[in-house]
Amino acid sequence: MPEPADLIPELAALSTSKIVLVVMDGLGGVRTQDRASELSEAKTPSLDALAAAGMSGVHTVVAPGITPGSGAGHLALFGYDPLVFELGRGALSAAGVGFALKAGDVAARVNFCTLDSSGNVLDRRAGRLSTEENQRLCAKILAECDLGGRAELSLQTERDHRALLVLRGDNLSPQVSDTDPQLVGVPPREPSALAEEAAGTAAVVADLLSQVGRILAGESANHLLLRGFDTLRPIPSFKQRYLLDAFGAAGYPMYLGIARLLGMTVAPATSTFDEQVAQLESNYDGFDYFYLHHKKTDSAGEDGDFDSKVAAIEEVDQQISRIADLAPDVLCITGDHATPSPLRGHSWHPVPFLMLGQRVGVDATAKFDEESSRQGGFGHILAKDLMALMMAAAGRLTKFGA
Amino acid sequence: MPEPADLIPELAALSTSKIVLVVMDGLGGVRTQDRASELSEAKTPSLDALAAAGMSGVHTVVAPGITPGSGAGHLALFGYDPLVFELGRGALSAAGVGFALKAGDVAARVNFCTLDSSGNVLDRRAGRLSTEENQRLCAKILAECDLGGRAELSLQTERDHRALLVLRGDNLSPQVSDTDPQLVGVPPREPSALAEEAAGTAAVVADLLSQVGRILAGESANHLLLRGFDTLRPIPSFKQRYLLDAFGAAGYPMYLGIARLLGMTVAPATSTFDEQVAQLESNYDGFDYFYLHHKKTDSAGEDGDFDSKVAAIEEVDQQISRIADLAPDVLCITGDHATPSPLRGHSWHPVPFLMLGQRVGVDATAKFDEESSRQGGFGHILAKDLMALMMAAAGRLTKFGA
Repeated sequence: MPEPADLIPELAALSTSKIVLVVMDGLGGVRTQDRASELSEAKTPSLDALAAAGMSGVHTVVAPGITPGSGAGHLALFGYDPLVFELGRGALSAAGVGFALKAGDVAARVNFCTLDSSGNVLDRRAGRLSTEENQRLCAKILAECDLGGRAELSLQTERDHRALLVLRGDNLSPQVSDTDPQLVGVPPREPSALAEEAAGTAAVVADLLSQVGRILAGESANHLLLRGFDTLRPIPSFKQRYLLDAFGAAGYPMYLGIARLLGMTVAPATSTFDEQVAQLESNYDGFDYFYLHHKKTDSAGEDGDFDSKVAAIEEVDQQISRIADLAPDVLCITGDHATPSPLRGHSWHPVPFLMLGQRVGVDATAKFDEESSRQGGFGHILAKDLMALMMAAAGRLTKFGA
Repeated sequence: MPEPADLIPELAALSTSKIVLVVMDGLGGVRTQDRASELSEAKTPSLDALAAAGMSGVHTVVAPGITPGSGAGHLALFGYDPLVFELGRGALSAAGVGFALKAGDVAARVNFCTLDSSGNVLDRRAGRLSTEENQRLCAKILAECDLGGRAELSLQTERDHRALLVLRGDNLSPQVSDTDPQLVGVPPREPSALAEEAAGTAAVVADLLSQVGRILAGESANHLLLRGFDTLRPIPSFKQRYLLDAFGAAGYPMYLGIARLLGMTVAPATSTFDEQVAQLESNYDGFDYFYLHHKKTDSAGEDGDFDSKVAAIEEVDQQISRIADLAPDVLCITGDHATPSPLRGHSWHPVPFLMLGQRVGVDATAKFDEESSRQGGFGHILAKDLMALMMAAAGRLTKFGA
């Protein structure tokens, strides 16, 4: 039986209509005994006016009780069922530093760490070394390490103690075990092949790590721990799947990276939502679909900082009328998952959304928050179905069946 | 594609948190032109307080319009999709009399019946003979019947005219046809093999029935009708699937049997909810997950006895604060299906549930009944998804996707 999501590529039609999706990362919250959610408490006159002008609902991102990572949450909002499609940790990490992973590349997440004189892990994060120190050590390794033509090495600073390692070459395999023991007081694990075809790759990694041990000798961060070996997974682009020319604007490389993996044209990273809206405005004529990503709501939720999450929501509220003024055929505002500040992390709770446009319809909801949205005209849906609703409202899906 | 439910075993994580599930059998009801539901009319100050302190919702047990049996209803509440997993009628019957069915055993449901002098069925229930008479006749058959080593016979009284037959031996097959013609005035059907490998088993059953005819000659209940030949179906345990050490308390052997089939440790059957709560209290330190089953709500509904169902609900209300006082990380209260007394039987109607705990969240619901729960924060879910929500709220599910 075909899954509903697979209908979209079949039914997608060209149009001149425009769709804007605004993602406030980790938008969803929960009421506790003590306090309403951040979105309930935030002063959002503009968002409330949009809720009144359109229809609201809530979406479960993956499935009831399932807490999504950022990759899964975004895939769902982009209409790619996260139970079918996977970005992979390597691809996400590469996206996170803006590295253009190619088919066949093998990527892994890197922690700079400190080993004691017996070779046991003393600190898995090398005292959370500075980003500058991380950059210096990456350059040192790249200058001195020689893999003898078996693979081309990239090592790119992420932030603090984290970096991305990429091997590029022929016949590489991501089936290599983590070397990060996830514990202190024990030595790093040897990289080993998890499948026969990965024996060569495991040997390259072992040689690399042995050289790194010599190159970093005497440094406080004197070794690397590797985990999450992965490769680029093929995923159909927005253009293939939806016939949409898509544009992405975000403040963090990872979200731009996800957009790029789906074939969107991305703007340079910006630091405020205000600037993202400006990028949208200046590119409005050139694209069909626009994705704006606001990170601060999630960061504040992860920090357990209720007031900062409220402020991050209000920051969007203050700019949102500029987007509405462009009069896109469909404007949808939501989050990629909940990050309730009382929980200090991602959660499984349903996320409110609002959508407006000529063909969307209007419900009685006049406030944008969890409790009002639950009563909205869209009811409770799965996040992966939002994209079809947006395309339908944009007149971009033809009739199903005779 | 993995179904959402299959994610749970992948994402399950160990924790010291505790989960309590209270099942009021057949809890769900319906408002009619004449009267509200039993749960609406019951005086439930404690349940209402819990609803106010947590979040509510309703669940459809299997699928819209589908009336579940007890096995399917419980599997769903335990997070086993009833469209994927099956307990089997034989296993359920065995559970019902507390018989520990082993792999390879073949079980069937038994009716004592009365045949006339021509060998036609006169009464399919032998005048609903007494449980004591049933026990006497089972003992008589077991004493005199000899299957010559081809199979070991068990015959265990259930109640009234009903019993359980189990054959234990090598190479037995459940692919044997019913002998119960479901009609009077015709002879019982011959047991026949429904698959080649069942020829031996069918012959054993035919021999058994021929001996039973002689052994019961002259009795008022002078023969057995067999149906629902079945064997134990493998089903993953709670421990395997959820990493939970589970404890079950119930008043009826069948519900303890279901709990046992899933690997739960079960308490001796008790007659009141009060005693089940005491069993929970005294075992609270030893387990992670607790299942309490209250039967009277269903029995009253099946009898069409509105007031008794109200009383059965109020019986739980009077004890429930003892459970809340244990402060489990997650407390969920619901039913395994609806048994509206105006319908005098199980029904397909959605069943209200409430859940509370630190990570659950709070909604505006302040009454535990069908109409309030429909407005609750969980919305309308499938029963099979309740388990993931409980585990998530107990901090026992890791993040999905990168």
